[in-house]
Amino acid sequence: MSDTPSQFRINHVAIVVPDIDAGLAFWRDALGLPVGERKRVAQEAVDIAFLEAGEAHLELVQPISEDSGIAQYLAKKGAGMHHLCLEVDDIEAAMQRLRAHGAQLLNDTPKERDGIRYVFVHPRSTGGVLLELYELPR
Amino acid sequence: MSDTPSQFRINHVAIVVPDIDAGLAFWRDALGLPVGERKRVAQEAVDIAFLEAGEAHLELVQPISEDSGIAQYLAKKGAGMHHLCLEVDDIEAAMQRLRAHGAQLLNDTPKERDGIRYVFVHPRSTGGVLLELYELPR
Repeated sequence: MSDTPSQFRINHVAIVVPDIDAGLAFWRDALGLPVGERKRVAQEAVDIAFLEAGEAHLELVQPISEDSGIAQYLAKKGAGMHHLCLEVDDIEAAMQRLRAHGAQLLNDTPKERDGIRYVFVHPRSTGGVLLELYELPR
Repeated sequence: MSDTPSQFRINHVAIVVPDIDAGLAFWRDALGLPVGERKRVAQEAVDIAFLEAGEAHLELVQPISEDSGIAQYLAKKGAGMHHLCLEVDDIEAAMQRLRAHGAQLLNDTPKERDGIRYVFVHPRSTGGVLLELYELPR
């Protein structure tokens, strides 16, 4: 495991919006960010649009049901940045180190989606930021 | 002006915290992000610590007076992500394009600090995100 800064690069910033087309009217049309994939994640009841930003991307996330976690977040906090995702080289080492420092993780073991292993860190441990860590496939 | 995605790379994500040392105890000590510069910006009444995250960085921002804009933000919204900064190749072209699409800019002409020209876009235009644009020195 290298100790270079690049191990922690930003993978994405997720932005929760009430309407993904209105979001794209700003980020794609007015600002000019290139749009990547657009998809529905049914099990999380959201539509997502990816916008390219250098080596990272922005994810516009729109809830598609009123009782989802993301819909509740939107109703309570309003639209805006929802979470920050950083890439790590070794997610289990990162989780062990975080636990040793008393940080609260939202899952005990890494979850997995499309070969990406991930974990969330509770905002009360980070100073108000919902933080996601990614270990990308090698 | 190139039209490649890299023109829009993330420069930084600013995170407002009530206490920068408590913030560093998480981001530097528990997570392990390398710390860059740490400084006081007296005219904005904040202390800032920079954390390296690949080609981008995180900025922990602590208000040092109770009547500053950032202190009021912290009191109202709580700790967390405050703004997102993207680099653009040509800030005046970006501002012109944004205005043509009806976006509300917080300054009419680019401001400048350390050779960086910058402008803020109002959250009501972006879908809830306070967005900063940087044109870096060439």
